[in-house]
Amino acid sequence: MPHARRRFLVSSAAAFGMAACHRNAVSPTAVGASRRPYGDRSPFETAARLFQPGVTPGTGSSRAPLQDARGIVTPSSLHFERHHAGVPTIDPRRHTLLIHGSVSRPLTFTMEDLMRFPSGSRMHFIEFAGNSAREHEGRPSATVQQSHGLVSCSEWTGVMLSTLLGEVGLQSSATWIIAEGADACRLARSIPLQKAMTDVMVAYGQNGEALRPEQGYPLRLLVPGWEGNVNIKWLHRLHISNQPAMTREEAATYTDLMPNGLARQFTFEMDVKSVITRPSGGHVLPVRGPYEISGLAWSGRGRVSRVEISVGDSQWYDSTLSEPVLTKAFTRFTLPWTWDGRDTRLRSRATDETGDRQPEREELITVRGLHPGPDGFNHYNGIKEWHVQRDGTVSHV
Amino acid sequence: MPHARRRFLVSSAAAFGMAACHRNAVSPTAVGASRRPYGDRSPFETAARLFQPGVTPGTGSSRAPLQDARGIVTPSSLHFERHHAGVPTIDPRRHTLLIHGSVSRPLTFTMEDLMRFPSGSRMHFIEFAGNSAREHEGRPSATVQQSHGLVSCSEWTGVMLSTLLGEVGLQSSATWIIAEGADACRLARSIPLQKAMTDVMVAYGQNGEALRPEQGYPLRLLVPGWEGNVNIKWLHRLHISNQPAMTREEAATYTDLMPNGLARQFTFEMDVKSVITRPSGGHVLPVRGPYEISGLAWSGRGRVSRVEISVGDSQWYDSTLSEPVLTKAFTRFTLPWTWDGRDTRLRSRATDETGDRQPEREELITVRGLHPGPDGFNHYNGIKEWHVQRDGTVSHV
Repeated sequence: MPHARRRFLVSSAAAFGMAACHRNAVSPTAVGASRRPYGDRSPFETAARLFQPGVTPGTGSSRAPLQDARGIVTPSSLHFERHHAGVPTIDPRRHTLLIHGSVSRPLTFTMEDLMRFPSGSRMHFIEFAGNSAREHEGRPSATVQQSHGLVSCSEWTGVMLSTLLGEVGLQSSATWIIAEGADACRLARSIPLQKAMTDVMVAYGQNGEALRPEQGYPLRLLVPGWEGNVNIKWLHRLHISNQPAMTREEAATYTDLMPNGLARQFTFEMDVKSVITRPSGGHVLPVRGPYEISGLAWSGRGRVSRVEISVGDSQWYDSTLSEPVLTKAFTRFTLPWTWDGRDTRLRSRATDETGDRQPEREELITVRGLHPGPDGFNHYNGIKEWHVQRDGTVSHV
Repeated sequence: MPHARRRFLVSSAAAFGMAACHRNAVSPTAVGASRRPYGDRSPFETAARLFQPGVTPGTGSSRAPLQDARGIVTPSSLHFERHHAGVPTIDPRRHTLLIHGSVSRPLTFTMEDLMRFPSGSRMHFIEFAGNSAREHEGRPSATVQQSHGLVSCSEWTGVMLSTLLGEVGLQSSATWIIAEGADACRLARSIPLQKAMTDVMVAYGQNGEALRPEQGYPLRLLVPGWEGNVNIKWLHRLHISNQPAMTREEAATYTDLMPNGLARQFTFEMDVKSVITRPSGGHVLPVRGPYEISGLAWSGRGRVSRVEISVGDSQWYDSTLSEPVLTKAFTRFTLPWTWDGRDTRLRSRATDETGDRQPEREELITVRGLHPGPDGFNHYNGIKEWHVQRDGTVSHV
């Protein structure tokens, strides 16, 4: 059972195994390394994206090591990947964005043009629609990286799409925007104009520098809160239309097969979700005693308003949400906890500002069934449970 | 003169030189690169920290490329550096933090111990006390990287120092904390206990992963809003005392010589400051027409509440502050602006939530004189001016 934060560590030195002595750190005595133009992490750090060799070289996905995540920013080097034709190498001096179709004046923008427009920066998560699908299918993964690693959060910088649409001038028939990437497969998705005019961004910056190649360098669409696939990377064309394009990605792949045999289409919003990242599958608690339970929550509908944690008993305890709590962004939640050495189940459930609450897996199955679509089950946001065993190992349930 | 944002780009296509045609982007047609465990930036990106070879190898400072900065996060690879004995390579499994002195129970913490304590994440800037000192001396630098590059902003994660102090138990005589680094010079600074009990953090995370080596891997002190030097890196010892240690860094180097010949000591807080980063020295405006003026503001006393911009005339215009506006963190400000092709002076001045406003250089000199201390002038926060020349080149004034 959790305890009050103020008394977290009173007389817990023994439990912590901390040395009550003046033994000093093992510290260098020689002058260290020189300055570097562009730094790198310590050689002792080994967190890495996870992926298995694919059938087609250069395509597939890789998962972010959420078990090692700190705070709410995902390092760009560890942001999850998903691509259908590999990561193109694009010279930004030759890259352009064409906006055409139902517009008064079709225009082509160079990267230099785009940098002159009013800019904005927003912290937002991006989640692959099929993230944690195996949980739904009843085949849970051993680690949080395997089960939930297809989501990441960055600070994105760019121009609001509404600004660029104001520039080309929309015709009254315009209702959809078809965004196309410059990757070899020209991945394309249709987005309702209404969303495009609110918070969609044409982004060129990520975490304080240019986009990383895997996230669309030099230009991507950022569609806050919507499934990853519509956040078109290597963006080179926006076709304004009076109907969706019905591309393969929206007519087949990213649809949700329902129990009645029909499929839901254009289910863009990612639902409220949370997962405990520490401790999580693969971690080991070396001794009984005080720990911190920590995790990430997010919602495509707005801010996370509450994350509750259950530690084996039937009660739900309110966790603390770390500031800043931003809309459509990762929110870090924490709860002090003392492990008494017994078999324990750890669960978290998030609620967002619209009142939506993360469901039990069973509740979700009741509504949506167990029928994966052609590319697996999308938009699964059930409660995730970790099992702390008596020997301190943490595993999936 | 700035114009209303809503009308920023109306009929400006000619000024932008944008091609009104259907020419498509130059886009790849072959499958791209494979997935990578730990990504890197595009080979087309060349932003780099700036430094000159020092007299002593491995020591000195390097400056962040603020002219290329986006948003408010500084990429860890580009965070400014300052070290007095190089960057030590420390094995986190062997690193410890000793807290001793006026305490009930001296304790040594391993990194694993520290990870079990309640954690917090905060976005904060760190600024070298002598950042932009040459502006004060009347020797302005050509670029914003040279003049203001000794400041950066990251999301830091760690344990609040007050938590650890609660663990060791403070004696009633305790009033100062002497923090010592594990670098070869054992850099040490004294911090009043009152500050230590408020927002000081023992940090192990930076921008979603472990600290970078140059920022103190595996452990640093984070003293929000206070001069960089007290944010002790490679932290291995905290000695609790009833007086400051009067180390070289606080008895000589980081003091402020005043016009009367006396020196101010323990001037920890960094004052409210801002600088326009785009356009800034070295940038070139290719044509007349619409641009965005964008820059960074920060204050060691709290939130930035206002940044005004002057564009050559005598008026100050309110810029827009990008959300989130966080305490003791970078705040991005922007203002749409049309360059009419004339000689123009761009200036910014920030005000923080305490009402402090960035002074003119002359105002600062009236109060503090022109007497640099033994290591140069510290805590200079005067208004910075850029000069847009008729040929579009931007230079310092």
